[in-house]
Amino acid sequence: MSWGQLYGVGVGPGAPDLLTVRAVRVLNDVDVIAIPRPNKWSKSLAWRIAEPNVEKNDEQEHLFLEFPMTKDKSVLGPAWDKAFAAIGQRLAQGKSVAFITQGDPMVYSTFIYLFSAANKLWPEVPVKIIPGVTSISAVPAAARVPLADGMERVAVLPATYGVDDLRQVLNDFDTIVLMKVSSVIQDVVGLLEEEGLLDKAVYVEKASSSEERVIRDVRQIRHDKCVYFSMIVVAKKERAGILSDDAESLQKLEKYWQSGVDEGEGNHAH
Amino acid sequence: MSWGQLYGVGVGPGAPDLLTVRAVRVLNDVDVIAIPRPNKWSKSLAWRIAEPNVEKNDEQEHLFLEFPMTKDKSVLGPAWDKAFAAIGQRLAQGKSVAFITQGDPMVYSTFIYLFSAANKLWPEVPVKIIPGVTSISAVPAAARVPLADGMERVAVLPATYGVDDLRQVLNDFDTIVLMKVSSVIQDVVGLLEEEGLLDKAVYVEKASSSEERVIRDVRQIRHDKCVYFSMIVVAKKERAGILSDDAESLQKLEKYWQSGVDEGEGNHAH
Repeated sequence: MSWGQLYGVGVGPGAPDLLTVRAVRVLNDVDVIAIPRPNKWSKSLAWRIAEPNVEKNDEQEHLFLEFPMTKDKSVLGPAWDKAFAAIGQRLAQGKSVAFITQGDPMVYSTFIYLFSAANKLWPEVPVKIIPGVTSISAVPAAARVPLADGMERVAVLPATYGVDDLRQVLNDFDTIVLMKVSSVIQDVVGLLEEEGLLDKAVYVEKASSSEERVIRDVRQIRHDKCVYFSMIVVAKKERAGILSDDAESLQKLEKYWQSGVDEGEGNHAH
Repeated sequence: MSWGQLYGVGVGPGAPDLLTVRAVRVLNDVDVIAIPRPNKWSKSLAWRIAEPNVEKNDEQEHLFLEFPMTKDKSVLGPAWDKAFAAIGQRLAQGKSVAFITQGDPMVYSTFIYLFSAANKLWPEVPVKIIPGVTSISAVPAAARVPLADGMERVAVLPATYGVDDLRQVLNDFDTIVLMKVSSVIQDVVGLLEEEGLLDKAVYVEKASSSEERVIRDVRQIRHDKCVYFSMIVVAKKERAGILSDDAESLQKLEKYWQSGVDEGEGNHAH
């Protein structure tokens, strides 16, 4: 028996043109695209991102798999059993299967369960991982706040974990990324206020998608019902890079591009 | 005067086909690609990644800019002055400029200096950031170790910062990404040994590039001269996801794909 190739494909944070060139190629090459969705009536977010990149191909199967939004093992277990069975059957037929996932397949993704299981279930199947742009970097791009620079340290916390020791983390790190912040937004905003960090925080939901929303005064969303794919980034920037105290030297530069003298080492394409 | 558009373009971790579709489009559309390199005699790593995606275009300028590998402000300052002057001059001529950077422009990148300065120097210039795949997710893909799952917390530390409190961070977090680990590799391996975490650590250099190197027994590289773009990922995985204790339920699944019964919700492309 010759097994098919299994791929975990990151489709990036939300915009269809933030897929990688490799992801687009794989999605157009495989026999089966496996598409996770919360239930039969919801559109898959990962598929909404990927679909504009996939050319019509009657030979290709789009395999929708339901994973209820729950942590209840008695619900998730059977859902995964069904998914493993469906994917395994196709791999066993020698078909290539690409499991798509928002962001990156190895960062807080549904694919991780499949990856762990694949190594046990189908040890002969070579699993290939196609990394994607994670929301951890799409959020700074949307917020226009660098994630980290030079010596800065970053902590990434799923806020659903609780925020008990958030005060400590806020002290120990330069940039703190609070993922899936919706359920604890009130506590987080309160704590940021206490710590004098309100002006260092930015709230971003659905970064890079057409529904992207960026809120710089996080007190505004304190009582909001936030969406699941929402983050708060706290960037203290107390240890910024070489330019932080160089306002003067920046000003004196203005003469250059007004003088028209070429200071670069440019050369034209040849 | 009508200013040109300035872009920060992430070219991903190393493989040319891990650029995003958007990055490829921007790099082919702009008047000028600004390319950082350590000196005039070294090839730019970012350009080596991007170049295969850029079509020959005699109208496009490739502007090489030198940024010496140093933290010495008296050396870096003038280098940046020169770069700002060269870029500013072109923007002032109404030319679009894309500054390329390995990984993501907002994550430990040269572009961050330019971004901070641009807001001050050219407040009228709308800076667009094209996020990229960071090595923080390319490394897990190479190491085949998920970065984080479920409730797991991630700490990202530039190891050049020192490893004084690494023991504490190793206790507080589930996954620890030590970037630019070369200068402290001996200390780090020693500490991992003391903490009994050697088998949870993987060393990766130049992830996703043709020179990728993955070492699972980090004691091997204890006395090595490591390259600059090297990381150690420590993934404790003590709080893994729903499948961790499900070896039995996985085994019973084998019957499915051997029976040929379709358990999926597949439908063909239409």
